[in-house]
Amino acid sequence: MRIAVLAGGVGGARFVQALTEVLPPSDVTVIANVGDDLEVHGLHVSPDLDTLLYTLAGFGDRERGWGRAGETWNALDTIERLGGETWFQLGDRDLGLHLVRTEALRRGEPLSSVTEKIARAVGLELALLPATDDRLRTRIRTPAGEFEFQEWFVARGHRDRADEVVYDGAGEAGPAPGVLEALEAAELIAIAPSNPFVSIGPILAIEGIRAAVERRRDRVVAVSPLIGGRAVKGPADAMFTSLAGGTGAGQVTDCYKGLIGALVLDVADADDAEAVSERGVRPLVTRTLMSEPDARAELVRTVLGLVPA
Amino acid sequence: MRIAVLAGGVGGARFVQALTEVLPPSDVTVIANVGDDLEVHGLHVSPDLDTLLYTLAGFGDRERGWGRAGETWNALDTIERLGGETWFQLGDRDLGLHLVRTEALRRGEPLSSVTEKIARAVGLELALLPATDDRLRTRIRTPAGEFEFQEWFVARGHRDRADEVVYDGAGEAGPAPGVLEALEAAELIAIAPSNPFVSIGPILAIEGIRAAVERRRDRVVAVSPLIGGRAVKGPADAMFTSLAGGTGAGQVTDCYKGLIGALVLDVADADDAEAVSERGVRPLVTRTLMSEPDARAELVRTVLGLVPA
Repeated sequence: MRIAVLAGGVGGARFVQALTEVLPPSDVTVIANVGDDLEVHGLHVSPDLDTLLYTLAGFGDRERGWGRAGETWNALDTIERLGGETWFQLGDRDLGLHLVRTEALRRGEPLSSVTEKIARAVGLELALLPATDDRLRTRIRTPAGEFEFQEWFVARGHRDRADEVVYDGAGEAGPAPGVLEALEAAELIAIAPSNPFVSIGPILAIEGIRAAVERRRDRVVAVSPLIGGRAVKGPADAMFTSLAGGTGAGQVTDCYKGLIGALVLDVADADDAEAVSERGVRPLVTRTLMSEPDARAELVRTVLGLVPA
Repeated sequence: MRIAVLAGGVGGARFVQALTEVLPPSDVTVIANVGDDLEVHGLHVSPDLDTLLYTLAGFGDRERGWGRAGETWNALDTIERLGGETWFQLGDRDLGLHLVRTEALRRGEPLSSVTEKIARAVGLELALLPATDDRLRTRIRTPAGEFEFQEWFVARGHRDRADEVVYDGAGEAGPAPGVLEALEAAELIAIAPSNPFVSIGPILAIEGIRAAVERRRDRVVAVSPLIGGRAVKGPADAMFTSLAGGTGAGQVTDCYKGLIGALVLDVADADDAEAVSERGVRPLVTRTLMSEPDARAELVRTVLGLVPA
């Protein structure tokens, strides 16, 4: 069974991991957000690709939710001592990856190709594709001004209200090699329970990808990132409030207007199922908290149950 | 007493350290070799400046002779796992410095200015100047072909005979800010017991520096890097054999032809003092092995004894 997944970082990684507990990894293609990529100390960092890589390769730090397990911070200690910026935490093991990737990009290698090599080197059997090889940067407009995504998210601790999310470069960005093919070939396209505004939004802001997903709407299922109207982690609920006017399943559905055939909701949001069907989208109620093995299995069964026999 | 020192890495650092055990550090200006600088994984690495910084700030690794004490190698482990090049060993603590420096250079800051900031941040009170802010790269011609210095030295373990040493870019390189002023103002100019071909040679290949040293020849003293015709460490003796035709004090003197008024020789080479005086240079015989505290103090007294009262 071929399945394509649009995914951000933490939520995306856990969802893909859950899928590969059931499906052979080689059946899965992950199309990952790169809108929160940034340059730190001259290095190209792709936080979502890295979270996916680390989690799926089994060496992510489970507690922190980002970066590598058993990480050390000696380079950062030096940077701090020398008066450099340390708001974006780069671990030593993590740095090795950024150095390899940045060097390849500077040589002119596309991000998709570097990512494929790295994924292979850490033993991943699924296909991990950046949504685009082109420059695409998520920016957040707030009452305090406009910020690059990581500046808003990490440096300022997403304390400023997001009034608008801008996908800088999306108009010129094309899908990375393999992305459209994966979307066309998939028996099911899943949108992971990632933040629709800053994790999935940048992927769908690429016109070719949006059109491909739209064409296959009946095969597209999104998993709501909210449980009882709250985000498991991160600023998704606050963003729903300021950007979509509420944290209900209806608002989640509206984020994917014209793009999805079904929406998976947590049992805590069961009362809200009608708001989904009213919008012409099939609601699927199940447990969605991926930290619980039973719920995780149930979620995957629900999602995969949509594939016609 | 103002003293300017031309210095390479290990030998230079130990000599400057010895000086500052006697002189106030603020009296000392170090003019350092940058001919063995290189790009590793897109980072600008200045091995000699770093050895000087680490040694003089007291956090160099004494046993290894390069890099930092208590170093970890987790970034390099990742690079290796991802199939990247690992012939040039970058420790995690060390990486922090390369990141800060590379970022500043990419912003257009000159190497001398970055170096000054770093030196201040680690608490150095002496002035540490790169010989030049311009690109200058030492290359080694061998029977197996021509190599960049670090490739010859580290990757190939300096096993290929050096038939010629080339200072690429020296013709266009100018002295870094402060270098000529330090040479003019110095009551004594010391050439550290560094390798004349690959540590001191690149500094003197910069025309303005060479001319300034030449003008002050009577105030210039070099310390021979050979003890009993052998290098304490590294390929200096093999280079003397292939490039200067021998490892005697005469050959050392010839390396600094027209540039020095005195040459400090080890007691092991006392018999060779005549070869120095024959060349119009004053031989000074003393113990020069800097790992021995008594010898180190004696060496410094001998060098500083040249300063007119």
